[in-house]
Amino acid sequence: MLLETIEHANDIKKIRKEDLNILAQEIRDFLIRTISVTGGHLGSNLGAVELTMALHLALNLPEDKIIWDVGHQSYTHKILTGRKDGFESLRQFHGLSGFPKRKESDCDVFDTGHSSTSVSAGLGLVMARDITGGKHTIVSVIGDGSLTGGMAYEALNNAAKQETNFIIILNDNKMSISENVGGVSKYLNNIRTASGYLDLKKGIYNALQRTKRGDSTISRIRRAKSSFKQLVIPGMLFEDMGITYLGPVDGHDISSMVSVINDAKRVEGPVMIHVLTQKGRGYKPAERHPARFHGAEPFDIETGIPSHPRTVANYTDIFSTVMCKLGQRDEKIVAITAAMPDGTGLKRFHNMYPERFFDVGIAEEHAVTFAAGLAAGGMKPIVAVYSSFLQRAYDQILHDVCIQNLPVVFAIDRAGLVGSDGETHQGIFDYTYLSGIPNMHVCAPKNKWELSDMMKFAVGLGRPIAVRYPRGTAYAGLKEYRSPVELGKAEWIYREREIALLAVGSMVKTAEEVRNILKEKGMGVSLVNARFVKPIDEESVREACEGHRLIVTMEENVACGGYGEKVLDYMNRSGCRNRLVNIAIPDAYVEHGNVEMLKQEIGIDAGSIVKRICEVLDEE
Amino acid sequence: MLLETIEHANDIKKIRKEDLNILAQEIRDFLIRTISVTGGHLGSNLGAVELTMALHLALNLPEDKIIWDVGHQSYTHKILTGRKDGFESLRQFHGLSGFPKRKESDCDVFDTGHSSTSVSAGLGLVMARDITGGKHTIVSVIGDGSLTGGMAYEALNNAAKQETNFIIILNDNKMSISENVGGVSKYLNNIRTASGYLDLKKGIYNALQRTKRGDSTISRIRRAKSSFKQLVIPGMLFEDMGITYLGPVDGHDISSMVSVINDAKRVEGPVMIHVLTQKGRGYKPAERHPARFHGAEPFDIETGIPSHPRTVANYTDIFSTVMCKLGQRDEKIVAITAAMPDGTGLKRFHNMYPERFFDVGIAEEHAVTFAAGLAAGGMKPIVAVYSSFLQRAYDQILHDVCIQNLPVVFAIDRAGLVGSDGETHQGIFDYTYLSGIPNMHVCAPKNKWELSDMMKFAVGLGRPIAVRYPRGTAYAGLKEYRSPVELGKAEWIYREREIALLAVGSMVKTAEEVRNILKEKGMGVSLVNARFVKPIDEESVREACEGHRLIVTMEENVACGGYGEKVLDYMNRSGCRNRLVNIAIPDAYVEHGNVEMLKQEIGIDAGSIVKRICEVLDEE
Repeated sequence: MLLETIEHANDIKKIRKEDLNILAQEIRDFLIRTISVTGGHLGSNLGAVELTMALHLALNLPEDKIIWDVGHQSYTHKILTGRKDGFESLRQFHGLSGFPKRKESDCDVFDTGHSSTSVSAGLGLVMARDITGGKHTIVSVIGDGSLTGGMAYEALNNAAKQETNFIIILNDNKMSISENVGGVSKYLNNIRTASGYLDLKKGIYNALQRTKRGDSTISRIRRAKSSFKQLVIPGMLFEDMGITYLGPVDGHDISSMVSVINDAKRVEGPVMIHVLTQKGRGYKPAERHPARFHGAEPFDIETGIPSHPRTVANYTDIFSTVMCKLGQRDEKIVAITAAMPDGTGLKRFHNMYPERFFDVGIAEEHAVTFAAGLAAGGMKPIVAVYSSFLQRAYDQILHDVCIQNLPVVFAIDRAGLVGSDGETHQGIFDYTYLSGIPNMHVCAPKNKWELSDMMKFAVGLGRPIAVRYPRGTAYAGLKEYRSPVELGKAEWIYREREIALLAVGSMVKTAEEVRNILKEKGMGVSLVNARFVKPIDEESVREACEGHRLIVTMEENVACGGYGEKVLDYMNRSGCRNRLVNIAIPDAYVEHGNVEMLKQEIGIDAGSIVKRICEVLDEE
Repeated sequence: MLLETIEHANDIKKIRKEDLNILAQEIRDFLIRTISVTGGHLGSNLGAVELTMALHLALNLPEDKIIWDVGHQSYTHKILTGRKDGFESLRQFHGLSGFPKRKESDCDVFDTGHSSTSVSAGLGLVMARDITGGKHTIVSVIGDGSLTGGMAYEALNNAAKQETNFIIILNDNKMSISENVGGVSKYLNNIRTASGYLDLKKGIYNALQRTKRGDSTISRIRRAKSSFKQLVIPGMLFEDMGITYLGPVDGHDISSMVSVINDAKRVEGPVMIHVLTQKGRGYKPAERHPARFHGAEPFDIETGIPSHPRTVANYTDIFSTVMCKLGQRDEKIVAITAAMPDGTGLKRFHNMYPERFFDVGIAEEHAVTFAAGLAAGGMKPIVAVYSSFLQRAYDQILHDVCIQNLPVVFAIDRAGLVGSDGETHQGIFDYTYLSGIPNMHVCAPKNKWELSDMMKFAVGLGRPIAVRYPRGTAYAGLKEYRSPVELGKAEWIYREREIALLAVGSMVKTAEEVRNILKEKGMGVSLVNARFVKPIDEESVREACEGHRLIVTMEENVACGGYGEKVLDYMNRSGCRNRLVNIAIPDAYVEHGNVEMLKQEIGIDAGSIVKRICEVLDEE
């Protein structure tokens, strides 16, 4: 096995040229085998095997720097920098992260997770290099999907201005998570299919290869390229901004890529190398169903079928179903996703009401203001989005939706702890950033039926509202509690005395467990399903304070600006002097791992909460 | 006066063609005369007089829709829709807004304020029109500066995909607030100077003018245009995305613009009209100093000199000075602005250390991640930005700076109430959105000396930190209180008993006033300069609770997630049972107007606070 000889960065350079494709195959086999057990991002990694190898051959790590946009395609990079053995614990608690992490290796120079950040970060490293007189090469690798995110364009705009050496690799597989959309995609497609250009390009490469850095020939060639613009030149968008364009080049041809990267190192100023790759390359099921193998659960290698097929509905399924119903009932319902028709569950709505469905690309900012425009035009837009990605559109929610009090519904999926994707993807800030915004309403369902009810309530409200629900299985307990959803009204589930548990969303289930344990200890425990984080149900809080000595609030969000602080604020304003225990996520990022383990780690599982309550009771 | 005949939308259509330039001159005179008294956005409005007139001539308002990007250039639009008389109260409390407001007129279809939102909002209105079977024309007017903001590009990408009628007017004056920068600017400049193209263009126009909507000639022409791409065609960036490009056209030639807009209405699919305008047009001082007349204070018309020249330093001046000192002391200090070198006070730093200064364009997202990249490369970046604009980069602060705990300093100007710009520009959310982020530190100075001290402290901290200070005169009181800034430590200014005022930043001055009034009433009042909102000084809070019956927190931020709630949370956790009065901005947007009046209106001026405190004391 060649793979066994790769133990450190640059070990790949010891492999004979003619054996590189064998190594690529070994890496592919390793990825498929490993991810079939652990789950993870398969398609993007299979697509980037040769590109990563070419980068490691052409660069000197860790002196040279690679910034991986999004970062879920960095598995081969991890393998080539001595982290192969970590793959057994991939994305598990205290195990190898599925994203680049500076704390894992000095070959990881910038942590990523969200889309479209790599050119900005790379350009920062470039300017730091120039100021301190460094000479190393800096490469940002960005997908064509990430290129639909506005900040990538802001960064290209600035890179063009800086006029210093910086290599941007456009890893073009025609996909975001699902198929890529919009004008840029159209533009790239024009490039891909431009005929008769490759020969011309080849001539330029050959000329470049005969020159050395700083040689005046390069500037002559650049001038020549400039005059070639009379022809249909791919990449003119980038060239016109002042970024030298090289490509397109076959992203599965290692030696071609190595030579283009070496060419790019000799060009002065920013360069974009356009690399064509195939998502899922080398594993038929992933080539055929790239969206399914984007973030894969463990699967059977032979068939590609999930090893543990889901048998119960998750919240996304429930949302998917209620959206179809809403769409049928009201022709003003429109749905918007930022490149996640599958992940958000909007695909069925898309199939039923194609003219009322909008996939805007990886573009959360635009998605929200576009929805505001639709609402101003009389529609009832629903923006379906993951909690951590909606962070991108904070200003648009505040500035474009809520100032005008427009009826945009935010269906916030993956809210709370998401597990294996870790820090960058935990949806634990939305109560805070949303409920600080005037005119916004925020609610969260306790179980699957309540998600349906809340969505129906939300589209009827006629004002900005967010419905937030977690990743994973939809809770099917407490079915018999289904009082109508009313604005700012909580639901009393059990009414006793002594301790009142006021829980929001996913924490109602946990609160039930807490209650059962406390009951066994002989305590009287009420349970309130808070439903609304904004506005909170002040009447229920007052009732709770009157009838209980201890109030316990529970939420899957950071404490700052969350539900518990709102309850406490009300208690202070109204002179309630009860002791309050605020169960929330501590003020620290939460790493990747199994959600149940994470909850224990940060003290928001039933056991930890009971312990905390008992401690407080003992203090008194 | 022709202007007097304009009382409603579409009245402009009664003016004879040959008199339109006279009307333009009257509007210009009116704008200069009015703004010289009220202050306001002069340059951008003088540049857009003819463009606005052409739009009103070619469209039918309110049925057709115009969305003004940023919106500060909408004065002529307000005049032409019957709001001329409102200009006496422009930007004053309860007076005419300086931005489009739906509540002012049915000709204002979407409220704007921040940059780069108009194409998203316009596209939303377009799709709502299509779904409901409308036939009206929708026009988004966006400046070349706003085009450097990423979300504009996200929107163009999506507009290209939708393939329905939508007119985007690129109002190109080569400026953001200051000179425009970056690759896009370079690109537009290439278009402007492209020679030999206008004749070709004219041919296409003539052909278009002979056709009617839906005529097959148009598609023939579009095909023909496509084949012209072998030539250097301006606007190919947009054409390649799938957006028909028309222009460039002289933005001060009304009849040319009317005919191009009429052409554009007949083109199927999205169209971009590239209009060349001059900022400050027709008023020499504004033509010469466009940045100074962007947002102008009242001025003398003859000379252009401010009527009430500033004699005392504002916080921006203090920041400007300390930045120059810091830059000299440490070569790792770098400064970043998003198109605001003047407004943020970084111009002097730019002049002294050009290689360590970065103006990235209107691109807050990129600015922050770029800063994170600089920090990862060993620099000490300072991002100088207005509070309400930093909202754009919430995710980048959370995801790119704070997860990696990178030493980026945010110098947040215009924090708190900003006054005449109103809802969209009030900087009243930053304590909330920043302090919910793990690893972030947030502080605010009580006076001018403390801003200097805090900036020095911040660059030395080596972790993410925000220093936030208000618009306007830097407070020069309490000079004798200048204890060293320490992380998470408050400063006790007066130590008495009974009532403890815990105030942050700008509210320390107010707290002094409150204290003086209460002292006159014979009460004992302590005053603590909180300094840090995150982490709060728990020890000082405990001391305050021990020695006082009433705790009053004071901040110029919304209550949710702010300083007061943090104090209350600590009091609850540590068993302090004192009554707390939390003085903060209520949960509602704050409109435009004089800051002192606004403070009274929302109850955070000294008088209102005293009243509130006395009420609470009476209750007990």
